[in-house]
Amino acid sequence: MNQQHTAAVIVIGNEILSGRTQDINLPYLGKRFDELGIELVEARVVRDVPEEIIHAVNHLRESCEYVFTTGGIGPTHDDITTECIAQAFGVEVERNPEAVKCLNDKYGDKNVTDARMKMANIPVGATLVDNPVSAAPGYRMENVYVFAGVPQIMQAMFEGISSELIGGDPMLTKTISAHMQESQIATTLTQLQNEHPTISIGSYPFYKNECYGVSVVSRGTDKNELNALDKKLQNMITALGATIIALT
Amino acid sequence: MNQQHTAAVIVIGNEILSGRTQDINLPYLGKRFDELGIELVEARVVRDVPEEIIHAVNHLRESCEYVFTTGGIGPTHDDITTECIAQAFGVEVERNPEAVKCLNDKYGDKNVTDARMKMANIPVGATLVDNPVSAAPGYRMENVYVFAGVPQIMQAMFEGISSELIGGDPMLTKTISAHMQESQIATTLTQLQNEHPTISIGSYPFYKNECYGVSVVSRGTDKNELNALDKKLQNMITALGATIIALT
Repeated sequence: MNQQHTAAVIVIGNEILSGRTQDINLPYLGKRFDELGIELVEARVVRDVPEEIIHAVNHLRESCEYVFTTGGIGPTHDDITTECIAQAFGVEVERNPEAVKCLNDKYGDKNVTDARMKMANIPVGATLVDNPVSAAPGYRMENVYVFAGVPQIMQAMFEGISSELIGGDPMLTKTISAHMQESQIATTLTQLQNEHPTISIGSYPFYKNECYGVSVVSRGTDKNELNALDKKLQNMITALGATIIALT
Repeated sequence: MNQQHTAAVIVIGNEILSGRTQDINLPYLGKRFDELGIELVEARVVRDVPEEIIHAVNHLRESCEYVFTTGGIGPTHDDITTECIAQAFGVEVERNPEAVKCLNDKYGDKNVTDARMKMANIPVGATLVDNPVSAAPGYRMENVYVFAGVPQIMQAMFEGISSELIGGDPMLTKTISAHMQESQIATTLTQLQNEHPTISIGSYPFYKNECYGVSVVSRGTDKNELNALDKKLQNMITALGATIIALT
């Protein structure tokens, strides 16, 4: 069930913690990692506080194969990710000529202000990641990818580098939802989990339009085994007299 | 700018990391902490893996005044939060009589199956947190509140205990959005941040309907100072020739 290739995501920014902005980068990356056969093992949302960013980066780059940060690489005073990445790796920040060229090509020499040029400051030793949306590049520092927070840009950066990530078999998911209660299926689910140890079975209750329901989510890389389990789950629900309301 | 009272949130569950379920508990809690004058300093999303849950709980309960966990207290095999909380605190799990009563009162003795009764297993020394939605209680263990993951239940649990949390002055937020680019305002923003050190100014670019824009978010507890800064920000945007498209 555990995949060989692991990733962590660090979401940098007070705006997510304040509840002002709903992060949509994590769900996007989670789905893409599934397709690429990489397991997302942890996500952290941290404040714009250098020591907290540095700590998260240094902890997770040791424990995971890939780390992805989102946010904090713009031109304003609250964009401190690059300084933190440099400190985490013990290197300096330099004005990167390739990044300068990206910004000049996009905006023309005259429109490249000092503030905008801050986005050409990159830690020494990093490899740039293309930003086809607004030019200011992301970068990779060893196993840490540093991306923008704006979802369109983050997604474009990720898709630009996704082919260089080493993954495994894609993680496949099957979901069955029905109006039932978890306690009705708990014993059978435990049994089915024991019968299918390579599949991860999750049970997620919901409460919608005054009705209780449960989504049973099966995740694994072996399609045949997933299908076999799926039939058993459908039988379990039918035997309860519950109606399946969604099947994906 | 830093508040005296701090909290961390641990979102427990593979379903969030896989991107299958969009977490909406974190934004809810973030907004409520603002109102209560408590600073949310970190959020972690962890897998259903005991050592990872225990590590997050033990790390964050040391560094923060309050910790809130969501998810993993249901009756199924993948609900492992209670075992992990007990291990984190070095205590046993017991069948809690008060929790048994909650479940019996709600479902009647006959409908309280073994599986359902698993939800009456609570770490020794914990204080129950009421669940007015579906009876199975959450609990508080020292400074760690253990809540359900289903948003309606999580919210009801939080509101039930919110009056016992010790906070400070409510965090107030003002947001101005305009079609402009961050690099146009970066220098002035740095200046304004220096002039108003007790306010946290964040600059968040967006890209919508083919237009770039920036939301400038000011956060602080002093209404008069926020208003004074807000006027300066409005002047800055007007001076640029940009139109303010949202003001909250």
